Amino acid sequence: MKRRLGALFFDKFELLDIFGPLEMFGVLPREFELMTVGEREGSVASAQGPKALVDVSFDRCPPLDVLLVPGGIGTRSEVANTRLLDFLKTQLGHVQVLASICTGAGLLAKAGVLDGKRATTNKLAFKWVVEQGPRTTWVPEARWVEDGKVFTAGGVAAGIDMSLAVIAKLLGAEVADKVAQGTEYDWHRDASWDPFAKAAGLI
Amino acid sequence: MKRRLGALFFDKFELLDIFGPLEMFGVLPREFELMTVGEREGSVASAQGPKALVDVSFDRCPPLDVLLVPGGIGTRSEVANTRLLDFLKTQLGHVQVLASICTGAGLLAKAGVLDGKRATTNKLAFKWVVEQGPRTTWVPEARWVEDGKVFTAGGVAAGIDMSLAVIAKLLGAEVADKVAQGTEYDWHRDASWDPFAKAAGLI
Repeated sequence: MKRRLGALFFDKFELLDIFGPLEMFGVLPREFELMTVGEREGSVASAQGPKALVDVSFDRCPPLDVLLVPGGIGTRSEVANTRLLDFLKTQLGHVQVLASICTGAGLLAKAGVLDGKRATTNKLAFKWVVEQGPRTTWVPEARWVEDGKVFTAGGVAAGIDMSLAVIAKLLGAEVADKVAQGTEYDWHRDASWDPFAKAAGLI
Repeated sequence: MKRRLGALFFDKFELLDIFGPLEMFGVLPREFELMTVGEREGSVASAQGPKALVDVSFDRCPPLDVLLVPGGIGTRSEVANTRLLDFLKTQLGHVQVLASICTGAGLLAKAGVLDGKRATTNKLAFKWVVEQGPRTTWVPEARWVEDGKVFTAGGVAAGIDMSLAVIAKLLGAEVADKVAQGTEYDWHRDASWDPFAKAAGLI
């Protein structure tokens, strides 16, 4: 069965947060059907400038099996976007995996998705994200954290490692290994590997 | 002086090939102005499905300081696109850095940009790329190769390491280090580091 994977886009999303994971899932077209989702269909500008296209709006979004939520400076205003937060809250009940990258965890937290859960986020924006989720157990030293169906990755590139972990969980470690080889990515398989927490003075 | 960086887009480009590097340069907005360039302005679909937007066509492209050329399955037809190859050839005379990622080296080779130069490419598509450049010294074991103003990276994720090397060359290693830290990327600083050449049976 092909899984439908939605990638959330909003104004000033972080490029690699979402396109790193989309690469990993996207090289398995027989396993995943990719779809970009946002408040409005059409052009959306990244925090770095380059623009992507949203395929379907929240209203038209078909049932998803996996939902990816990037970070980026745009999260600072999206935490006040109730339509987006409602979408995330609703999706939690339906998807098999709900995953954030970087400060995308701030959006999940604000939507209540991380209440009572363990989670991590970008190490340089840790304080701001933690403030969005007072009922979450925040883990400062982690490449990614898995808690039930919810995965949260550290900053930017950490999303690639997390995506491979999700692929390993859904399809087996051998498939994830093949994806890493094919994309010449040096996969960090250990979720506790995190030199960036120390560099950021969090531990 | 802010440098203008162009990123080439064509139908069925590889997502991470171009968005990994665009992230690295893009987190330095005071140093680089990013621009997406293609044959036609507007929507362009990646090999994985998600679409990006081309800001300027070849005809309207302003002078560039850096040009990034991704790979992807679309390269198999773009090697016959004389407008694209002419654009690459012309740019070689103007830019400070011309860099390919993955099978993007096949496009540079076909355009004659790699004639008499050392270069590398994706390890699993090595044979096809080498056929595009009979006057190039192809290096099977390399994360990236620098030859004058031309940089060529290995497959997909190798473009991130190469981009940091370009940043280090233009702005100093300290700046590149900061970018890697901020994006939580485990930078491979050694251009000769390449476990994928062996895994692909090239050495």
